[in-house]
Amino acid sequence: MSWSGISYSFHFLGNHCTKMVSQLEIAMDSLIKVFHTYSSKEGDKYKLSKAEMKSLLQGELSDFLAASKDPLVVEKIMSDLDENRDGEVDFQEFVVLVAALTVACNDFFVECMKN
Amino acid sequence: MSWSGISYSFHFLGNHCTKMVSQLEIAMDSLIKVFHTYSSKEGDKYKLSKAEMKSLLQGELSDFLAASKDPLVVEKIMSDLDENRDGEVDFQEFVVLVAALTVACNDFFVECMKN
Repeated sequence: MSWSGISYSFHFLGNHCTKMVSQLEIAMDSLIKVFHTYSSKEGDKYKLSKAEMKSLLQGELSDFLAASKDPLVVEKIMSDLDENRDGEVDFQEFVVLVAALTVACNDFFVECMKN
Repeated sequence: MSWSGISYSFHFLGNHCTKMVSQLEIAMDSLIKVFHTYSSKEGDKYKLSKAEMKSLLQGELSDFLAASKDPLVVEKIMSDLDENRDGEVDFQEFVVLVAALTVACNDFFVECMKN
């Protein structure tokens, strides 16, 4: 079971992506839907341009964007995420942002629980 | 903006984790809730034991579990995810599983769209 190659037997995805039911599957489905809602606005339908990323951040993470107070925050996020340096962010690169923010949110939640 | 340290100004998380509203925030919130639903059953409340991981996979990713047909799939997933080798899976390690499966699901979705 190689992790990087994700060589799980993904045949379940054949029918799975079309009928997600558990809370976790609904959340995974939402991540995909949110990404494609914004990535399909212009240019490559499967990648976020800078304008699409800005629109996503404003629409989905508005507090986060407002809190940063950095006028170049979108540029910095794009630069951080754009591993292959093609000037856009694909889904795999986008998931890094979601994972990082969710982990930070969880850390905060755990701190709240412990205090 | 260091990515590993996630030095975004996270004050928004102070009030944010309690009032998530966008689809993306709801999905992030769900990932946290699903994890803690299972991690709090026994032992360390903030980590998944093997039994808790098995319960999570059965409850949230039953098709994926069934599709693997490998009797040792839970052990292999635990071993893959348990970066710090403490015999348990914390939230940051869990998010790697979710990210990998979601990316694989998205790849499948994009293939469907292109064909």
